[in-house]
Formats: sequence, C-alpha cells, structure tokens
Amino acid sequence: MRLRHKPWAADKLMQYPQYVIQNPEQHKGQWSKVFGNDHPLHIEVGTGKGQFIVGMAKANPEINYIGIELQNSVIVSALDRIIEEELPNVKLLNVDGEKLREFFEKGDVSRVYLNFSDPWPKNRHEKRRLTYKTFLKLYEDVLVDGGEIHFKTDNQGLFEYSLTSFSEYGLLLKYVSLDLHNSDYPDNIMTEYEEKFSARGQRIYRCEVKYPTNNREAE
Amino acid sequence: MRLRHKPWAADKLMQYPQYVIQNPEQHKGQWSKVFGNDHPLHIEVGTGKGQFIVGMAKANPEINYIGIELQNSVIVSALDRIIEEELPNVKLLNVDGEKLREFFEKGDVSRVYLNFSDPWPKNRHEKRRLTYKTFLKLYEDVLVDGGEIHFKTDNQGLFEYSLTSFSEYGLLLKYVSLDLHNSDYPDNIMTEYEEKFSARGQRIYRCEVKYPTNNREAE
Repeated sequence: MRLRHKPWAADKLMQYPQYVIQNPEQHKGQWSKVFGNDHPLHIEVGTGKGQFIVGMAKANPEINYIGIELQNSVIVSALDRIIEEELPNVKLLNVDGEKLREFFEKGDVSRVYLNFSDPWPKNRHEKRRLTYKTFLKLYEDVLVDGGEIHFKTDNQGLFEYSLTSFSEYGLLLKYVSLDLHNSDYPDNIMTEYEEKFSARGQRIYRCEVKYPTNNREAE
Repeated sequence: MRLRHKPWAADKLMQYPQYVIQNPEQHKGQWSKVFGNDHPLHIEVGTGKGQFIVGMAKANPEINYIGIELQNSVIVSALDRIIEEELPNVKLLNVDGEKLREFFEKGDVSRVYLNFSDPWPKNRHEKRRLTYKTFLKLYEDVLVDGGEIHFKTDNQGLFEYSLTSFSEYGLLLKYVSLDLHNSDYPDNIMTEYEEKFSARGQRIYRCEVKYPTNNREAE
C-alpha cells in the first residue's frame, strides 16, 4: 500500500478512544465489556483503510469487529468511516498484528479475517507471510476452539502457499473459491484493493479454514 | 470424451495379454510378478487414450504403471501406444475403476493419478466424482501408508470441491498449482485433454495429496 505520511494521524486516533482502543492489553479477556455485549468477536489483521471491516460491521450488527492496523496514516481512514457511520460494533487497534497475544486471550476471538495480505513472494521471506505456521499458532492462541480464518487474496502464489500451510498445520478447508467474483458466494464485502484489482480483471481467491475442536463430540 | 464405437476393440485387447492384463484379480498382492521387479506401482484411474500413462512410463523406467479404463474403444488407443513403444513397465486394465479392491490389496499401489476426471457438476451427482469420500476410501484401501493422489483438472468447480473433500478426509495437501502451465513445475506430462484445453487458454489446476502414515515416526 502506498503510504502518505500524515503527521496529524496519531493525534486524531487519540481523540476517538471510543473507536480506537487505547491500552488494549487492559481489555484482554474482557472485550465484551468494551462492546457492552457478549456477541462473537471477529478481527481483521491488516485492516488498512477499513472498507471491509466497516462494511462487515454495518451488515452484521450482531457481531463485534476489531480492525488491527499498524500504520497510523492508513488506519485513520478507517476511523473516518466509523465516525461517519457511528457504528457501535467496530473498534480499531493501532498496533502490530504480531502482538495479538498481548491483547487477546484464548477464546476471545471467534474468527480472523486476512484480506490481501502482503504476499512476500521471496522464499526467504516465508516467515513474514500472515499464513506462515507461526502466525497460524498466533491466531490459534486467541481463537475459540473450532475458530476460523477467512482469507482473500488476488495473489496466486500466496494462495497456493497458504492452502498447503493451512493443511500442514492441520486446519480443515471448509470452503474455497478460485474466482470469487464469478462464484455464487452471496455476501462478499470488498476491500479497497479488491475493488481495484478485480476491476482490472484479476481473479480473487478466497477460502475458509477451521481449527480443530478439542472436544470432537461438540462438532 | 466422445466415444466412437469400435467393434473390434475387445478382440484386439485380448490379443495382447502381456500389455492388457486378463483376469487381474489373480494378480492381487502379486503385481511385482507381473512386472518382473518390485518397483513402486503407480496407477491412473480413467486412463483414456493413455498419452499420460505411457509418457510417464517412458520418462520413469524405475516405476511400474497401470492404466485403468472401462471403455474398450478408448483404451485400445493406449494399447497402440504401448505396442509402438514396446514398454515393459506399463500395463492396462480394461475394468471399472470402482472395483479397484478386486485387483489390488492394501499396499500394492504407491500413487494414484486422477487426470481430468468427469466433473459431475450437479450436486446430486457428487457421489460419482472420483474425489468423493467413498473413492478416497477406495484408494486408501489399495495404497501404501502415506500413499499419494496426484490430481489434475481444468474444471474449476471440481478442483474447488476436491480440495475440500481431500481436507475433510484428512489428507495432507503437499503441493498445489492454480495455473500449472505457467508454473515452475518441471516434469509435466500432458494428457490429450490437457493439450486441447490448455491450447484454448484454459487454466490447468494440479495438486498432490498424501494419506496419513500410521507410524508417525516413519514420516
């Protein structure tokens, strides 16, 4: 993503603590208090300008959402959307997604969204891909048993890699689309990237994977 | 595949018992005697006119191959190729692939190839797809522990379905290509279909999946 430096971004994020959660580690294990209800919590790692997470929050008022994005000059656009929509069920964290364990405890999160993550195409950068096994462990450590990852990308190589990485980790592939915009998937909410790349005729790949449940009888 | 009736096909197949194995159930558990060596055995279910299996046999003399095809008017073309090449390491079975258990016992087969299988796109025909769970059980019953399926198709829907079916069954996805002919996969041997459809610009999908090994320490 092209970053435009916005020296005022950090200040603006501080001015809306009801939307951009400060000191998120203090809410670990208690996110229902932040939202004022015990709805399921879905998070997006790398939320960018927030078109996806805000669209999801509008469409699904019975779900709580948290968008996580390290770049303050980007997440500030997500904040603008939330201010405009006055949505109670979506919050932002201006933090590093690698530190999820500091902010969430096991079972806090029901679903992780990964959308158009950086493909890191070089083999030597494999460990940086958000579907590398250390990240799959990170998500597992904050998800409920049987929690899910929903993943979209236009990058063929990253999608191929991720399918094998998910399988190696023991995740169940519940759903896969190799051409999302020509599929019968009904409820797609597009990210900014997705709009741009699909308008160029680029295929969008999507899948849903599920962590094992410890109690198999609960399945 | 368009079938042209060849009334002479059955007779011709009978004339080459060194290539088209008669009464294959008699060789169950003893295929090394048929080939005269104990090389690994790879089978193709739905071998058609045999371009793939014969090409593989030429390229890999240290592997034994069996092509299985029910339609005698089609497999007779595979026989012609073998006669021409005088290959010792490829045989044909003019039988129904659903009856694999009659001809092979557990451990006889190291790898199953499925190439451009009928997609059976209607949901009510799911059970006929060669990657449906009953077929995955069938292959398991003849494969070695840790045996593999290598699968190619140009049919997006069948590939999507198969990835989830493999995962549901507990198979490990070792390799996936979403555009085989633009990938770095080095040793592709094309089927007749593959030549035709890729020439039209159709993408070819390919994956390799592995059954679990019972003894995990052997992995």
